[in-house]
Amino acid sequence: MQENKQRIAIDMDDVMADASGRFVEWIAERHGVTIGREELCTELLNKAGIPYEKIREWLWEEGFFRHMQPLPDSKEVMKELVKKYEVFIVSAAIEFPQSLREKVEWLAEHFPFIDWRYIVLCGHKYIIQADYLIDDHEKNLISFTGKPIVFTAPHNIHLKGFERVNNWAEIGNKFL
Amino acid sequence: MQENKQRIAIDMDDVMADASGRFVEWIAERHGVTIGREELCTELLNKAGIPYEKIREWLWEEGFFRHMQPLPDSKEVMKELVKKYEVFIVSAAIEFPQSLREKVEWLAEHFPFIDWRYIVLCGHKYIIQADYLIDDHEKNLISFTGKPIVFTAPHNIHLKGFERVNNWAEIGNKFL
Repeated sequence: MQENKQRIAIDMDDVMADASGRFVEWIAERHGVTIGREELCTELLNKAGIPYEKIREWLWEEGFFRHMQPLPDSKEVMKELVKKYEVFIVSAAIEFPQSLREKVEWLAEHFPFIDWRYIVLCGHKYIIQADYLIDDHEKNLISFTGKPIVFTAPHNIHLKGFERVNNWAEIGNKFL
Repeated sequence: MQENKQRIAIDMDDVMADASGRFVEWIAERHGVTIGREELCTELLNKAGIPYEKIREWLWEEGFFRHMQPLPDSKEVMKELVKKYEVFIVSAAIEFPQSLREKVEWLAEHFPFIDWRYIVLCGHKYIIQADYLIDDHEKNLISFTGKPIVFTAPHNIHLKGFERVNNWAEIGNKFL
């Protein structure tokens, strides 16, 4: 335990890794349709003839998680964050068993300075003991016992009641 | 959150799954040497001509975790435990990326009544918020913020200072 440091739990998909961008990429490749990430909602996808249930199946496909892009500035800010805070990466990935190894390998590739001991792959995140949680999903933020911070993603722009960061530069401004 | 229930975190290897038995099995198969599980220590293994560093490599081999046997009475007691408590399975498995999927599949096979949301694959366990932790390793027990309980395994028989359970029948007696 790093007694003298505050602990920050940080989500992966749509916080560190560009999961929305990955959907946009596969929709273009597989359906030949170019959409913006703000159009990634059930209603607009259905309108474009791409059923949400169909693209959700990609979450169980080999390689979907492995080749996401890190979000802008995430590497640079994270590198400083781990010096000042005890950072844990916390991803609710158990639902997708093929993703588990991919996520550990993705972190080793893009964030090699994060030791494996600080990675948590789980389901319910309310079991995590930390001072802060940066996450894009209301269900994780609402049950967190520390201070929750919402990271802006297409599906949470209307979410109220949480402190918000829009990008990694803002995480840097707040914590560094 | 199951507000009205106490929360128990339970380790996998050498608590739910017979990891020691798996080593004994592979030593017999690969080295043609029959040893008891109480002989699974560096000194005795070296004496038997089986270097510890060599067999530790098995932890990174496909299939090592997937085909362990559940420990006696674990299924029956666990089935009752999840009714009365909020049980999380917590395994420090991130070090072995190939084991992650195997562990989720192993739990689905032997403990199908445990929902994926209650599985945690991690490194440091001190991030886990629970009332109890049942584990075989001192490093996990000593930093736990709830009540630690040591589960007897060959490598912890001399460990003092923790409440101890020797088997799943004793877990049942204590908690049910």
